[in-house]
Amino acid sequence: MVDLKKVERNINRMADKFREKNIAFRPHFKTHQSNFIGEYFKKAGVDKCTVSSLGMAEYFAANGWQDICIAFPANVLEINRMNDLSKRVQLQILVDSVEKVQLLAAGISANTNLFIEIDTGYFRSGILYDAVAEIEKIMHTIEAFPQFKFVGFLSHTGNTYTQQSPSEISTLFNESRQKLIDLKKRFLPRFPNLILSMGDTPAASIVNDYSGIDEMRPGNFVFYDSMQYFLGSCTLNEIAVVVYCPVVAKYPERNQLVIYGGGVHLSKEKLTRNGKAIYGLVSKPNSTGFGELIPGSFVESLSQEHGIIYMPEAEMKQIQLGDLLAVYPVHSCMTVDLNKQMLSLEGLQIPKYRTY
Amino acid sequence: MVDLKKVERNINRMADKFREKNIAFRPHFKTHQSNFIGEYFKKAGVDKCTVSSLGMAEYFAANGWQDICIAFPANVLEINRMNDLSKRVQLQILVDSVEKVQLLAAGISANTNLFIEIDTGYFRSGILYDAVAEIEKIMHTIEAFPQFKFVGFLSHTGNTYTQQSPSEISTLFNESRQKLIDLKKRFLPRFPNLILSMGDTPAASIVNDYSGIDEMRPGNFVFYDSMQYFLGSCTLNEIAVVVYCPVVAKYPERNQLVIYGGGVHLSKEKLTRNGKAIYGLVSKPNSTGFGELIPGSFVESLSQEHGIIYMPEAEMKQIQLGDLLAVYPVHSCMTVDLNKQMLSLEGLQIPKYRTY
Repeated sequence: MVDLKKVERNINRMADKFREKNIAFRPHFKTHQSNFIGEYFKKAGVDKCTVSSLGMAEYFAANGWQDICIAFPANVLEINRMNDLSKRVQLQILVDSVEKVQLLAAGISANTNLFIEIDTGYFRSGILYDAVAEIEKIMHTIEAFPQFKFVGFLSHTGNTYTQQSPSEISTLFNESRQKLIDLKKRFLPRFPNLILSMGDTPAASIVNDYSGIDEMRPGNFVFYDSMQYFLGSCTLNEIAVVVYCPVVAKYPERNQLVIYGGGVHLSKEKLTRNGKAIYGLVSKPNSTGFGELIPGSFVESLSQEHGIIYMPEAEMKQIQLGDLLAVYPVHSCMTVDLNKQMLSLEGLQIPKYRTY
Repeated sequence: MVDLKKVERNINRMADKFREKNIAFRPHFKTHQSNFIGEYFKKAGVDKCTVSSLGMAEYFAANGWQDICIAFPANVLEINRMNDLSKRVQLQILVDSVEKVQLLAAGISANTNLFIEIDTGYFRSGILYDAVAEIEKIMHTIEAFPQFKFVGFLSHTGNTYTQQSPSEISTLFNESRQKLIDLKKRFLPRFPNLILSMGDTPAASIVNDYSGIDEMRPGNFVFYDSMQYFLGSCTLNEIAVVVYCPVVAKYPERNQLVIYGGGVHLSKEKLTRNGKAIYGLVSKPNSTGFGELIPGSFVESLSQEHGIIYMPEAEMKQIQLGDLLAVYPVHSCMTVDLNKQMLSLEGLQIPKYRTY
């Protein structure tokens, strides 16, 4: 279930923020994976996007997006499809080794923009920011192929997700930003147009100083989720997607009820608060929307189709078999990916890439 | 990727085991969710199945299955579809309260079999085994509705999954079995045909004494997975499903490589060994199948589309960008659910419920 008014507000707030700061906004569409939601971005003046797979890039290209970045290490097994897509849209792809550039050059003849992915300390993908000699070799290799254009350095500081407070998120983001700025300064004389692209919703929501950065690529903010709420990236009222789950059993003697809503609907992503695993927060929807959170209640475990909700006695008395409860997902990207389509509060069916 | 020879062996072994012991075999189909795999069960003489949702029951009914148990607390919001399906096949549904029976009776007019779900200590769903007076009330309520037939007690001892050894699994299963046998003895005089139905792959694989039990409903054994391997339910060679993932980046300096295979492909289900999270074991496929496990290697973290594999230096030297690695999933039920279809080693596309 999607609250489209919240979606629109989340998009406009972020688009306005980066417009005011004169920073290019290339939102990540892996969260919603939906052309319908993409149209809200177009209305907010956004004309470029980020995706996490070639298939998703093809989907958004088919829906009129002309400037797409695949923010995932380029997969050489998809080289022919990448080449085909690059003929039709302005494609940006990621490399982080000389070998990868050479492998891609053997199969891509269309003009393609290459970002060098930089690892500032998340240790997922990208070349380490201080491997300067190697970075320079990659740039030389890119220059050797006329179909390729080196556009700049891209980094995802996903380690902001494991910080404990907004100030820790800001500190970490600033450290990463400074590492990228140092790289930019070093290579700007030879590549005066090179840009710096950073991502992540926590930093995009919390930080105010992006000086030196040319482009931001947050994605999750379109819906937010329980994890972002606990990180301090959003308020509860800004969470724009939930899963409506029917109550199928009640066990007042152990303060638990069972919903039809398990790992195949919500994903097994969890967060830990006060030593307890939380797989989602819980509210009772009303006629206007998702409703208020039910005090003291949360999804405490999941199996394939069962969700177990902890709920205090007084609150459970208000709940009947067959009632729908709204689960605020821990990680909206994973939850939305699992569901075949979304439904708006107005009853509109919202198609997405996975059903495409 | 599915190795159909292993699938066939896993099915035949389990079907033979319960045939020899004269126990009805009602395998759970939530693991494969595929009529194609269902046909292998038919060949092994199986004529009844278990599913975890009404949609899955409708799918298998449409493919000729005539005796289906929905092993999930009946969802009163689906009452009309349940009634429709119950007119066409022998449907068994689960209740665990007087209220649920009454709610169902208001919408179900077709003859339907009701199991009372018993909780022997897993604390997920079902009425507690020692709430005898309440269990009796449920039986009386069922008898009051002519469309309903009380068939017996059903339990899922899912707590076998958290045991540390085969002997612990056997002990726990035997304790649960004894609790059910005590219930059966108490009510057999009035319901001489009542049966006991138990589930779970660890117990079905490891235990040898099922005396007193009438029906077994394991599901996972059709494919097994890394979790079952560590539990001692299967050998590595019996694991029949893996995900082939391309290598997209190598980081020898930190003994890590990145595959295109993340939480949306494998699920975020993990297990912990020696204090380390494991999201899958890893092999290099060869021309005959999944190949041998790569020593010391495992999936150590997942994000949406990235998988990070830990691999020792010597082994990583054998791996090139673009190679396919096979990931043995932690929980095959969740992983198979996430993927649109399966592919056999022979290249056959195997459709399943989610694409139906």
